[in-house]
Amino acid sequence: MAEASDATLTEPAPAGGHDDLVGGMRDLLDGSHAEVRRKVVDGLVPFASVLEDADTMTSADFRERVRDLLVELAGSGLTGLGFPEEYGGGGHIGASIAAFESLAHGDLSVLVKAGVQFGLFGGAILQLGTKRHHDAYLADVVAARTLGCFAMTEHGHGSNVAALGTVATYDADTQEFVITTAREDAYKDYIGNAARHAELAVVFAQLETAGENHGVHAFVVRIREGGEPVAGVRIGDDGPKMGLNGVDNGRLWFDGLRVPREALLNRFADVSPDGVYGSPIESKSRRFFTMLGTLVQGRVSVGGAAITASKVALTIAITYAGRRRQFEASDPETEDLLLDYGLHQRRLLPLLARTYALHFAQEVLRDDLHAVFSGALSDDLDDDEIARRTLESRAAGTKALATWHATHTIQECREACGGAGYLAANRFAALKADTDVFTTFEGDNHVLLQLVAKGLLTDYAGAFEDMNQLDMVRFVGGLAVDTVLERTAVHKLLERVRDLLPGGSSGPDGSEPVGDRVASASERIEIRDADYHLAMLSFREEHILGSAARRLKAGVDKGGNPGEVFSSVQDHVIAAARAHVERLVLEAFAAKVEATPDGPVRDALTLLRDLHALWVIETDRAWFMEHGRLSSARSKAITTQVNALCREVRRIAQPLVDAFAIPRELLRADDLLG
Amino acid sequence: MAEASDATLTEPAPAGGHDDLVGGMRDLLDGSHAEVRRKVVDGLVPFASVLEDADTMTSADFRERVRDLLVELAGSGLTGLGFPEEYGGGGHIGASIAAFESLAHGDLSVLVKAGVQFGLFGGAILQLGTKRHHDAYLADVVAARTLGCFAMTEHGHGSNVAALGTVATYDADTQEFVITTAREDAYKDYIGNAARHAELAVVFAQLETAGENHGVHAFVVRIREGGEPVAGVRIGDDGPKMGLNGVDNGRLWFDGLRVPREALLNRFADVSPDGVYGSPIESKSRRFFTMLGTLVQGRVSVGGAAITASKVALTIAITYAGRRRQFEASDPETEDLLLDYGLHQRRLLPLLARTYALHFAQEVLRDDLHAVFSGALSDDLDDDEIARRTLESRAAGTKALATWHATHTIQECREACGGAGYLAANRFAALKADTDVFTTFEGDNHVLLQLVAKGLLTDYAGAFEDMNQLDMVRFVGGLAVDTVLERTAVHKLLERVRDLLPGGSSGPDGSEPVGDRVASASERIEIRDADYHLAMLSFREEHILGSAARRLKAGVDKGGNPGEVFSSVQDHVIAAARAHVERLVLEAFAAKVEATPDGPVRDALTLLRDLHALWVIETDRAWFMEHGRLSSARSKAITTQVNALCREVRRIAQPLVDAFAIPRELLRADDLLG
Repeated sequence: MAEASDATLTEPAPAGGHDDLVGGMRDLLDGSHAEVRRKVVDGLVPFASVLEDADTMTSADFRERVRDLLVELAGSGLTGLGFPEEYGGGGHIGASIAAFESLAHGDLSVLVKAGVQFGLFGGAILQLGTKRHHDAYLADVVAARTLGCFAMTEHGHGSNVAALGTVATYDADTQEFVITTAREDAYKDYIGNAARHAELAVVFAQLETAGENHGVHAFVVRIREGGEPVAGVRIGDDGPKMGLNGVDNGRLWFDGLRVPREALLNRFADVSPDGVYGSPIESKSRRFFTMLGTLVQGRVSVGGAAITASKVALTIAITYAGRRRQFEASDPETEDLLLDYGLHQRRLLPLLARTYALHFAQEVLRDDLHAVFSGALSDDLDDDEIARRTLESRAAGTKALATWHATHTIQECREACGGAGYLAANRFAALKADTDVFTTFEGDNHVLLQLVAKGLLTDYAGAFEDMNQLDMVRFVGGLAVDTVLERTAVHKLLERVRDLLPGGSSGPDGSEPVGDRVASASERIEIRDADYHLAMLSFREEHILGSAARRLKAGVDKGGNPGEVFSSVQDHVIAAARAHVERLVLEAFAAKVEATPDGPVRDALTLLRDLHALWVIETDRAWFMEHGRLSSARSKAITTQVNALCREVRRIAQPLVDAFAIPRELLRADDLLG
Repeated sequence: MAEASDATLTEPAPAGGHDDLVGGMRDLLDGSHAEVRRKVVDGLVPFASVLEDADTMTSADFRERVRDLLVELAGSGLTGLGFPEEYGGGGHIGASIAAFESLAHGDLSVLVKAGVQFGLFGGAILQLGTKRHHDAYLADVVAARTLGCFAMTEHGHGSNVAALGTVATYDADTQEFVITTAREDAYKDYIGNAARHAELAVVFAQLETAGENHGVHAFVVRIREGGEPVAGVRIGDDGPKMGLNGVDNGRLWFDGLRVPREALLNRFADVSPDGVYGSPIESKSRRFFTMLGTLVQGRVSVGGAAITASKVALTIAITYAGRRRQFEASDPETEDLLLDYGLHQRRLLPLLARTYALHFAQEVLRDDLHAVFSGALSDDLDDDEIARRTLESRAAGTKALATWHATHTIQECREACGGAGYLAANRFAALKADTDVFTTFEGDNHVLLQLVAKGLLTDYAGAFEDMNQLDMVRFVGGLAVDTVLERTAVHKLLERVRDLLPGGSSGPDGSEPVGDRVASASERIEIRDADYHLAMLSFREEHILGSAARRLKAGVDKGGNPGEVFSSVQDHVIAAARAHVERLVLEAFAAKVEATPDGPVRDALTLLRDLHALWVIETDRAWFMEHGRLSSARSKAITTQVNALCREVRRIAQPLVDAFAIPRELLRADDLLG
């Protein structure tokens, strides 16, 4: 693009007396990708005017603006870090995720458009294609010379990819696939880049040879030529959306589109010229999940972006609350900054602590992703099977918690800034509208938590990764629940810390300690002991998981229809998944504290860890009381501690958001920040 | 306006087998204002295209569109029902609120613009002015020949009207007031209608005569002539907002604007030509609160509109969930409509029950408002003082709960409709964006709950209505808490139902029954007994109120600074207010059930009442366990009951939303509703 804002790179205002903390914490947060993060953020500042364009341009103009910016960013090399170097990429998946997280400081239409182009579209060609596709496409994709889209979701099939209705039938006579939208109302929908800019699409369709269905496969096809749809493709526009209006989401219908045999992304399956289907993976369902599994980075990216968006909102709201006086007319001797009010601390500071917790959980996830994907892209599918499944589960769970957290945090920050928070000039309007769909895309959060639960209930059993919901119910129906539980990671963790649980050693079998025992045990345990927090969350995880499994089994034993059994236990199943991910988040945070040298950074992290952990326990304290792990007195003591921790964190709240190091231009909240 | 959509009035699809329920419930919901409600809704249908215009027009064009529609609506007579008949109004405040609630089925920019013109601006002239103002302005205001704005809020003074910085100094030489914005950054802000359309403004300013400040008063002044600001007024534009972009919110600066002496809205105070200030109300602060009190209908209106918006969202999400199948590939014998899933029921049906609860709470409030305001507008300020204070408190509390409920409900409904919920074509985007500020305007919800708490803590003591926060702390510091509690309505209620409380007769003094006693008492009490629910909420209210008062008193007794004491107890104070309003809501719902004859409508209402009540108790079950009013077993039993009630309500969920009788054109969700 031609113009750039005349803003120069600025640093956040130094926090008097807390410079060490700000700098040290910032280094810790940036971690091993500090240079990439800084480059991305610095690179966004000259284009900060795009934040304003989102409000003032027409949707049509803004779409072009975002496309131009995407092409510009591609030139920096920072959007292609996940691709092999021979195609102009950076060859580092971990860095590519870090770059994406940093890109989320800017306009989120730009972010999502980049995610579609480089993550979904480019990522599918990289992960599902072979050298012929890489050579043909990747250099142009990385440079954004060719724009593409990722046509998976269909209208009415959002969460059930295996059942989608588009069909690709192989025609051996012409050695072509014929792609057809099976029903007029089963069009591809919500496809980013489709309405306006994509020339190519990765299309997911049922592959059929000689009347036989081989399940869903991906094809790379041309959908647009010279700006117009090619013959055989109809393109619709999803029109205005709540947010992300710089992304041209659209609809695709295929009317017998003919594409060459080589359009099949054939890493995991191929069709010979004469029409013989072959795959190294025998099970149709397993093949499908293997393909989907390679696309996990999309979920890791969205979760990371949600955490960044939370940081932006909290930086604005906390900075504002630290300078605005609530009632100027009141006693001038009183400290009456908004952030000095107990309620205001309660509204914002646990969210700040949780943002830190999720940051470190995301760091673990990013490193896991990098470890799993940075080996040579192997076709040996039995290697690392468990590692991949565990990664997928962690990605799904972290994405769900991080995106719900963002929705909640941005809402609370908006309200905490009152009417000014409602003006588009102060970032919240865009943050809220743009991130709202994060809980839905790349997998609806509830569906993702069901995926996590399935993994837990089947212990990622190699033979069962292709189970659907009903198979899972039947499988659990045949379990010896306690045996399965004993093999879980949480069980082993619990063995180590169980003596820290008030109520002592009773197991997850439903036997509850009585009140007095809890009360006297409670008094002995330090309320800010990290192992105590971990023991509480681990106990909850194992207990809910065990009882969900037991209820599923009981339903099957009674001869119930698996679908009905699942429906009646669904909330319990999802609670198990949530409890599991909460434990992982806390574990990641606790490990980070342990790895941090003594000093102001560790002290601050310890406060945040305790605030986060006790707030999580407090939020679910009813459950802990119901299950004999909190006495009334201990429960009240936890609330008292959360209040006390809020007051302690309040003193360093400004350095803690300054450590996010978000340039003023990207906060776009001059009206609030003065 | 020239065009109207060609949509004709349509009724919601009949619910097979539930016609009696739909019709009967609809009559009950419409209540005494059925005819007005129908007229407003039917009148909106021909203009349903405005819902689409909100997405497709530029802000500038959409503002004009909304203005035109406002003028059109004024012609129907339905927007002026609250004004005296001699000025073209309807002379019925209750009906005017019902009409406003119904107007909220349509585009909310239109609603808010109407609220500014007829509620805030026109209402201020009516309530604060005298005959000379009524005669001069009201006929033109009611007919929307003259548009005006309500200039109270200032930048940085959102919640502290008493401290605002605009000054109106009386100049006896010219018999004029000189209105001046005291500091450049203390301009009037967020003023609806100001940026573009208002010719007049009701301006709130500190009235000064001969150097003496008499507190905040209101003036009606011209700010625009022939489309341009008059000399002495500068007008700014708040620009794009998260939503409500059909409302031209703006900023006003007054640079020594001279207005005649008669511009003072002089119902409660006047200045003689030679500059002598006089008022029948001696206390400056009491005078101020009396003036503000007359504006209570704005809060009643916003709360009612929030309830309507919740109904729109729930109608879409529940209808959608009742026709969409989750996984088409699963066992075809299984019922797998989205709404058959336990989790989906949990997400939507308690919100439906609460919407009903709030509807009936709003009905009580609307009737109270009508009763207080429908007498001749009396200047006898001691009459009905308690009734007015009680009304203000109820209005503040209901507004807070209803608007938070709307924010939460619309969000959950959007997520429950997945990606389709994110498209502007399906109403949620607009509903979410437009209602988001409801929690802030007409009083920030937290500030409103503090107002409620102040009333409770001081028992609306006549002499103390003008206390600020710090006075309130000092006042409570001098209380005999138990004596005050014994005078409250909740205490009397509790006397009646206390024997229904598990744990029996222990008082709010902090003595808790032990677990075993609670458990054995619990078993004897019917879990769906409405009096049990009321006893639980009443106990909670009295207990939290008593302990907040005790903490305030203890803080003062220890010599604490009142500001700090308040800050440290603030969350407790707000919890007391919330508990109070929750009890009022439940009481209103329970009374409505009792007043309904036996039959399907009463049966359905009973289910909804129980679901709402038990869900409220479940949500705060930790508190009840901590305070000895729930055993673990009883707590779990309540959760089981909530699940069971969800399954029961699910069977009549469609008729329950059909009873809201919202025409398809106003739902604007064809993509979801087919």
